[in-house]
Amino acid sequence: MFAGAQVSLYPMADGFVGVILESLSALDPYRDQLRIETDDISTLIVGPPEVLFPALRDLYCAASASGHHLVLRTTLSRGCPGEPDDPICDTSCLANPSEPLAQRQANALETLRLAPDMGQVADAQFSLYVMGNGDHMAEIMGCIDFLKQSGTFYKSKHFCTRLTGDAGAVFATLQQAFCQFGPANGHVTIDLTVSANSPSKR
Amino acid sequence: MFAGAQVSLYPMADGFVGVILESLSALDPYRDQLRIETDDISTLIVGPPEVLFPALRDLYCAASASGHHLVLRTTLSRGCPGEPDDPICDTSCLANPSEPLAQRQANALETLRLAPDMGQVADAQFSLYVMGNGDHMAEIMGCIDFLKQSGTFYKSKHFCTRLTGDAGAVFATLQQAFCQFGPANGHVTIDLTVSANSPSKR
Repeated sequence: MFAGAQVSLYPMADGFVGVILESLSALDPYRDQLRIETDDISTLIVGPPEVLFPALRDLYCAASASGHHLVLRTTLSRGCPGEPDDPICDTSCLANPSEPLAQRQANALETLRLAPDMGQVADAQFSLYVMGNGDHMAEIMGCIDFLKQSGTFYKSKHFCTRLTGDAGAVFATLQQAFCQFGPANGHVTIDLTVSANSPSKR
Repeated sequence: MFAGAQVSLYPMADGFVGVILESLSALDPYRDQLRIETDDISTLIVGPPEVLFPALRDLYCAASASGHHLVLRTTLSRGCPGEPDDPICDTSCLANPSEPLAQRQANALETLRLAPDMGQVADAQFSLYVMGNGDHMAEIMGCIDFLKQSGTFYKSKHFCTRLTGDAGAVFATLQQAFCQFGPANGHVTIDLTVSANSPSKR
């Protein structure tokens, strides 16, 4: 399997370079479990979902703590047929494909109980895409049902779903959406935006 | 059909609100052909691809002309089975589904000749997602073949493709990727990031 994310941080501030560079130390505890490469548009982070989502959460929280309005943007992918298998992506957190949707929803909800409280609010907007044969809309609607019970569901929008809550709960919910829906060996992606300190909310 | 985008502008500047508000007048010539709704995370723009992409291009160019480093981010979607048909989205620019991939690639390349020169550079990164039954990877690889001949192809990355060039050519290429690949009545999405004036490129 190959899994990972293209990640960008957008601080809406003249000092954006400093905010980004100071936030990156949040990735340090995870670096030996991830492969990280940066260019001028985004940073590639390759690794299993159970490392990737906590790393993104901690990066977001470090940046959000700056107090600036900023956005964390990521394109997450697992199982893309065009990518090579990579041992660094070995994971035990994908759903058992023989489990019915209702059981996977229950597993996802159960896992959320373990989410830490991070003390930073996360306003997230995301789309889950399930590629390949099979009823992709059944998986997406099943995921939306889970989201509505997750405690962080805010509203449905055209093309995407809004979550809001403590960053611990929000990123845990996103991890479950990514791992429990769509086939375990299938091609699943998430298009994710997480906003901090927006003046539109004040 | 239902088509549109969730759009956000991220100016990396203390005066980000002003940059955003000043750029929005670029949408004025298109407003009677689009439905536009804004919240704290993104702006929904509903309409046909032949209006949507020029509108996004002009919004990007107006913002880029500010000279600030900024990013235009959009989640584009057409044909999502969960969305209602909407007459404002009626379009004549989707591929004929009976045409083979090679003919659609040729049509896309021919259309690029008409792209205007906007005088603003666009560094774009995007992923095309084709949902539903059928060989989605054949369509995606066919799109990548087209991109490599488009004149704006820069490089392939994990999970996405980089384009660079004049904003006229880049947004025209993105429109063709969205319209010519994946079934005409299918569910196709694009996860798009366009970066302007990045200090990483200086």
